[in-house]
Amino acid sequence: MSKREPLTVLDPEDGTGATACCPPLTERPLTPAEAERTAVMFKALGDPVRLRLFSLVASHRDGEACVCDISDVGVSQPTVSHHLKKLREAGLLTAQRRGTWVYYRVAPSVLAAMGQALTVRS
Amino acid sequence: MSKREPLTVLDPEDGTGATACCPPLTERPLTPAEAERTAVMFKALGDPVRLRLFSLVASHRDGEACVCDISDVGVSQPTVSHHLKKLREAGLLTAQRRGTWVYYRVAPSVLAAMGQALTVRS
Repeated sequence: MSKREPLTVLDPEDGTGATACCPPLTERPLTPAEAERTAVMFKALGDPVRLRLFSLVASHRDGEACVCDISDVGVSQPTVSHHLKKLREAGLLTAQRRGTWVYYRVAPSVLAAMGQALTVRS
Repeated sequence: MSKREPLTVLDPEDGTGATACCPPLTERPLTPAEAERTAVMFKALGDPVRLRLFSLVASHRDGEACVCDISDVGVSQPTVSHHLKKLREAGLLTAQRRGTWVYYRVAPSVLAAMGQALTVRS
């Protein structure tokens, strides 16, 4: 009944800007621009290996993990790095270099925005 | 702290069986089988045109739409039909033929399960 404001989340491109994202998919037809932005995030999770890596990072102790923590997903370390980079580019993970390794962490606001997109109209 | 049971949703393959789906991605690493099942749904929404079609069906009057209701997504009617079929195969839409047209409707339990997958651990 009431129009909800779409969430504002960090811009996946640079992690600093703000982008309106992900109105509930059941509320009204998405505009082409909204669909482009939102599809990037769904696509990033639309691969089984990336999805496993994402859940591995998200559920790791202290909520962060580096490639050095990941060994059992059945792909090589360069492939793991490639997929983690894709997840970061989609705005789903943030990355911080500390010494030798890049540590990845879930971007909770983006997850919340995707969850919001999947809210079923009541 | 407490383990939540994953939701059980209709099997996307045939719409009749039941499949455990989509534990919260932040709870524990997904198993390969869980990741395969869940990635199918995210992948289906990982395309801007499919995402627009999905939101168009979901927000259409009475919660359903057929190809005959869809005209402004910038792709041909056969392409629209192709994408709607993909969404149905992923379990996100249900389909019912009535007369000339197939009418599509959102499968709310699957949406809820995907929303559950994106729940952030508190």
